Amino acid sequence: MRTIDWVDGAVELIDQTALPARLTVLRIGTVEELVAAIQRLAVRGAPALGVAGALGVALAARHPDDVAATVRRLETARPTAVNLARGVRRAAARLPEGADAVLAEALAVRDEEIAASAAMAARGADLLAELCGARPRLLTHCNTGALAAVVGGTALGAVLELHRRDALGAVLASETRPLLQGARLTAWELGRAGVPYRVAVDGAGPFLMARGEVDGVVLGADRICANGDVINKIGTYAHALGARRAGIPFVVVAPESTVDPDTAGGEEVEIEDRGAEEVLPSSARPDGVDAVNPAFDVTPHELVTAIVTERRVIRLDRAERV
Amino acid sequence: MRTIDWVDGAVELIDQTALPARLTVLRIGTVEELVAAIQRLAVRGAPALGVAGALGVALAARHPDDVAATVRRLETARPTAVNLARGVRRAAARLPEGADAVLAEALAVRDEEIAASAAMAARGADLLAELCGARPRLLTHCNTGALAAVVGGTALGAVLELHRRDALGAVLASETRPLLQGARLTAWELGRAGVPYRVAVDGAGPFLMARGEVDGVVLGADRICANGDVINKIGTYAHALGARRAGIPFVVVAPESTVDPDTAGGEEVEIEDRGAEEVLPSSARPDGVDAVNPAFDVTPHELVTAIVTERRVIRLDRAERV
Repeated sequence: MRTIDWVDGAVELIDQTALPARLTVLRIGTVEELVAAIQRLAVRGAPALGVAGALGVALAARHPDDVAATVRRLETARPTAVNLARGVRRAAARLPEGADAVLAEALAVRDEEIAASAAMAARGADLLAELCGARPRLLTHCNTGALAAVVGGTALGAVLELHRRDALGAVLASETRPLLQGARLTAWELGRAGVPYRVAVDGAGPFLMARGEVDGVVLGADRICANGDVINKIGTYAHALGARRAGIPFVVVAPESTVDPDTAGGEEVEIEDRGAEEVLPSSARPDGVDAVNPAFDVTPHELVTAIVTERRVIRLDRAERV
Repeated sequence: MRTIDWVDGAVELIDQTALPARLTVLRIGTVEELVAAIQRLAVRGAPALGVAGALGVALAARHPDDVAATVRRLETARPTAVNLARGVRRAAARLPEGADAVLAEALAVRDEEIAASAAMAARGADLLAELCGARPRLLTHCNTGALAAVVGGTALGAVLELHRRDALGAVLASETRPLLQGARLTAWELGRAGVPYRVAVDGAGPFLMARGEVDGVVLGADRICANGDVINKIGTYAHALGARRAGIPFVVVAPESTVDPDTAGGEEVEIEDRGAEEVLPSSARPDGVDAVNPAFDVTPHELVTAIVTERRVIRLDRAERV
């Protein structure tokens, strides 16, 4: 099953807001619907967003009214993950050649992400086995499995590959407030795969590392800067601080499509604030209560042990550069 | 209004599980009911637990069947905060003198916590003003206000005192998963006091510090070890790591009754695990999903700038000792 795909002239995607209660596939025929689905996180995860962006341009190309404005709305639907804008721009570059060329490019983006997932899983599993000891107990954050990609996944793909090799101890899934992608989505994927795991609140991660219950941290990225700074789901930086203090590896697994050489460092990235409603639903919120809700944070490159992509392993701990 | 008190022969306490939706006062006439209230966190916070323990012995003394066993159940209702067992033992030492003597001792525990709150607020506000600059923006975690004590509070008492002095910038209240004492209780107290504040998910704290949005961290303790290690609500250690990396003060405000010279360091403290239900309610949890749910963590003394009690300021950053 693919998280997102092109089926009979429309985009189909698993509605990730309904999981784990219901497995629902949405069929989306317009860019407006797709933008709404992206903004409410029905589809999320950097690789999946890249595919969504490219497929969205294929939708736009079939309704040629005001394509430029439509494409621009799609490109800016969410600001932080570089993959969305990149997927949009790649497909949009074929617009002069017509709708079929755009669709072919979008399907190529999809197929490349599928291939990248398999390569990342193998490389990531190799590195985790090397760095984290036999049958490591791994902490992960947010969701980086098939739901964040098309199939397979990034960091969670590497974890699942370790499990297939019978070389995994267990997984600690950080719940990932406010939207609980860890407790809802990662837990769902791990359960289906038969991987032993436990969920923990985000604030417990660094303490469980200090107590010796975690052999390594492995998670994804929404953008990797030229200097190696990693932009990822809020809470990632706290886990990186915990890993450094505990002396355990902190490994990022993400496709090359996430690497952004045009962004020098984390301080240049626009961090999306998703508003108070996600943190404090208005039904439970007294009048006037506000929240600050950065959806991502910046982990400085010096806290990152290694970055794994489908093509390479970058050992930041050995001063290798992105 | 007192969070917990002795009224007409029974214990009355605000049911903290019902806030902020409802302000409900429970009237409790037996130790069994009190133990249940403590275990489901209707009453919580180290100073309030000390008072609850002492008042509970006063209840036990009025029903002299099997007092020793009843007192023991109360003493061990929760394991981590030293105040509960200490309040119980202090009142129980008067049992040979009869019920009135026990009650007098329990009321003395209550009155001492009330006096301690006022002294901590003044000392804490002085220190925060000295360490964190003019009109500091302070991050706090869990709830350390009047609800955690009898009136006033510990760390939040110092924050409110700064506000009364018109010397506070704003508060960032860390929501404090899994039970949201920050988003529910601290937000409620700050709102009633007219203090400007925002709520953030726990994982955002260290990043907001790195981004320069926090001038200091101030929070409470459930136990302070002889070496200065601080046992406090899960998530505290992650904030301490963030504060150290950002170069901002990390201040603990707690009564002397929280200092435990009999515990050498954090590794000796039993950390209560409160089970999967708090993290993943069974209504939303697929079969077999487990969670690890430590209710507290250990912040090593070398990450603590200072500890403020009603009697003293201990500058751990200047090698002063508990």
